[in-house]
Amino acid sequence: MSNYIEDLNWRYATKKFDANKELSSEDLETLLEAIQLSASSYGLQPYEIIVVKDAALREELKLASWNQTQITDASEIIVFANKTQITTEYVDSYLEDIAETRSLKLEDLDGLKGMLESTILKLNPEDQSLWAAKQAYIALGNLLSAAANMRIDTCPMEGFDIAKYDELLNLKEKGLTTAVIATVGYRSDEDQSQFAAKVRKSKNDLINVL
Amino acid sequence: MSNYIEDLNWRYATKKFDANKELSSEDLETLLEAIQLSASSYGLQPYEIIVVKDAALREELKLASWNQTQITDASEIIVFANKTQITTEYVDSYLEDIAETRSLKLEDLDGLKGMLESTILKLNPEDQSLWAAKQAYIALGNLLSAAANMRIDTCPMEGFDIAKYDELLNLKEKGLTTAVIATVGYRSDEDQSQFAAKVRKSKNDLINVL
Repeated sequence: MSNYIEDLNWRYATKKFDANKELSSEDLETLLEAIQLSASSYGLQPYEIIVVKDAALREELKLASWNQTQITDASEIIVFANKTQITTEYVDSYLEDIAETRSLKLEDLDGLKGMLESTILKLNPEDQSLWAAKQAYIALGNLLSAAANMRIDTCPMEGFDIAKYDELLNLKEKGLTTAVIATVGYRSDEDQSQFAAKVRKSKNDLINVL
Repeated sequence: MSNYIEDLNWRYATKKFDANKELSSEDLETLLEAIQLSASSYGLQPYEIIVVKDAALREELKLASWNQTQITDASEIIVFANKTQITTEYVDSYLEDIAETRSLKLEDLDGLKGMLESTILKLNPEDQSLWAAKQAYIALGNLLSAAANMRIDTCPMEGFDIAKYDELLNLKEKGLTTAVIATVGYRSDEDQSQFAAKVRKSKNDLINVL
C-alpha cells in the first residue's frame, strides 16, 4: 500500500481532541502552506483563511457550533471563508500578480482576462459565492491529507451557524462568508471514534467505467 | 521542506498531456482508492465517479468542453458526479452500511439518523445538490494531491457544458449531475505551462490570525 493511502486510512474525523496537545508553529506553517498551494479554478483562490487563536472568541464560536467541543479543545481552528462576490478589481489584481510573478506584460494576459470575463465575472453574485465556496473545499481536502501525512488529526465541520460565524469573525465587511471549518490537533486517547472501522462505499458502488 | 509541500510545488494544471503515455492500471487504482477514502460530510459520499475510457465518448465530451485537448490527450478522465437529491432511502442505506461494517444495531445509530434528518434531509433538493457538489470537491482536492505524490499530472476542469455531460454520461436518470472533472496523465514536454512560476496569494493576503 502506498504511504499516501496509508495516511488516508489513518485519518478519521476526530470527535474528541486532546486539549493539552498543541501543534508546533512549524507544523501549523506547513499546513497553511499546503492550503496556500492548493489548486483553484483559474488559480483565483477566492477565499481567505482565518486561524482563530483567541480563547474567548473560540468559546463564542463553540456556542455557534452546537457546542461541539472540538472548537475549543483542538489545537487550531481553521476557517475557510469564501468571497461572496468576484469583482473586476479582484480579477485585475490577480492578473497583475501573474504578470509580476511571471515577468509578463498585462496585455499578454488578455486571453485569460477574456476567459474570466466570460465565465466567473459573468455569474450572478450568488453563483459566484457558491463557486468560490467549492474552491475552498479543494483546499480543505488538501489540508486534511497534508495533516494526515504529518499524523496530525483533523475534523472538518459544517455544523455551525454561518451568520453567527460571519458576525463574530467580521467577515461580511470583508466580502467574505464562512464556507467550512477544520479543527486541527491531536486525538484524545478517549475518542472512541478512532477505533471504529472506516465506512466507505465499495468501489463497485462508487466507481463506473465507461 | 516536507515532501508533501514539495509534491504541491511540483504539480500544476497541465494544459497539454502526452497522448502516448498511459497510467498503469495499478496507479489508476491507487488514485481511485484515494478518492474512495476521501472525507465527506457525515461520511455520506454523495457522489459517484465515472472513469471514461471509451474514445468515441471522449471525443464527444471534448466537444462539450470547448475542445480542450486534455479531454482526449490525457490518459484518464475522471468525472465527479454529485447526487442531485439526498433521499431518506439513501440515508437509510448508508446507516445500514455503518451498522454492518461496525457490527452495530441500527438503533445504535438513531442519534446520527436524527442529525441527518434535521440537517441534510431537511435541505431543499437544490441545496442538497450544492452541498453534494462541495463534498465532491474535497475528493477532487485529495485526488490532485495523491496524483502529485505519485508524480502523475492532473488538470481539474470546470469549463464544460454540464447539461451535455449529464446527457452523454446518462447521469440524470441516476439522480446525478456533473460537479467537476479531472484529467489525469503525464505532461507533454511541449506544455509551456510547466515552466511558468506558480502564482499564489502571499500568506499575508491569504491568512488572518485572530
